[in-house]
Amino acid sequence: MTKSTHYKDYFLSHRLVTNELVEKISKDDYDYKPTDTSMSAKELVVHMLTSFYQFISAATKQPPKPLHDEYADVDLSLLAELYTEESVKMIESLSNEDLNEVIDLTAVLGIKLPAEKILNLAIDHEINHKGSLFVYVRGMGHTDLPMFVRK
Amino acid sequence: MTKSTHYKDYFLSHRLVTNELVEKISKDDYDYKPTDTSMSAKELVVHMLTSFYQFISAATKQPPKPLHDEYADVDLSLLAELYTEESVKMIESLSNEDLNEVIDLTAVLGIKLPAEKILNLAIDHEINHKGSLFVYVRGMGHTDLPMFVRK
Repeated sequence: MTKSTHYKDYFLSHRLVTNELVEKISKDDYDYKPTDTSMSAKELVVHMLTSFYQFISAATKQPPKPLHDEYADVDLSLLAELYTEESVKMIESLSNEDLNEVIDLTAVLGIKLPAEKILNLAIDHEINHKGSLFVYVRGMGHTDLPMFVRK
Repeated sequence: MTKSTHYKDYFLSHRLVTNELVEKISKDDYDYKPTDTSMSAKELVVHMLTSFYQFISAATKQPPKPLHDEYADVDLSLLAELYTEESVKMIESLSNEDLNEVIDLTAVLGIKLPAEKILNLAIDHEINHKGSLFVYVRGMGHTDLPMFVRK
């Protein structure tokens, strides 16, 4: 198995759970916040989708293409599908050599990191926010929830 | 760097954030639940600490020692310190050969996995629940919160 196949599988084992949670969020709940100081459900989901896409764009040394109009009405399930598909394409494009390339993230994170470390950080970021999203979806009344990772 | 040192650092980059959140939870908030169907804060923290310890015990092929009396009153900060220390010792004990050993988790997870995969799964489990714990701590009124991972 190539490294990029490993990372695609690893990413999807979490992202497909994210997308399953997103499908449970009705439009009426897009503004739901579990606490006064939390992001809304919509803000959280958009943050997860766009952050991963920006991380993987940095890892591939490509400027992220604008995939959606942030001021337009969104359907979170469609957005999740779109960002997942585009993110997978970029992971698949990475050779083992690309994964060793040191990427300059000084402007955004104050550090330089090999592309492979960025990819791991991006997946940890996804898992972290998905852990929060589980509480959101539970707060909307759902109790039939998936495992945190898909086998 | 040996693999076990890498995993110790990776584990601590998340566990030390967990412990920072745990320190913010006062005894009055041990029974706090963000939603009706959630675990209480105490249940969640104990689940995180004991699960990681059980995963790493399995990876080292050692039966987990009982580290606390589950029916006694607990101080979650002290418990977090104890489980973190014992878990680190077990990670440090793993050689590269140990990490390749296939471990039979059929009884608990229905699968057999190399020790290294168990360790990765255990850390992902920690990150997932820490993501939930952030919402709990925010729900208790805290807003001065750490980054999801310690650099």
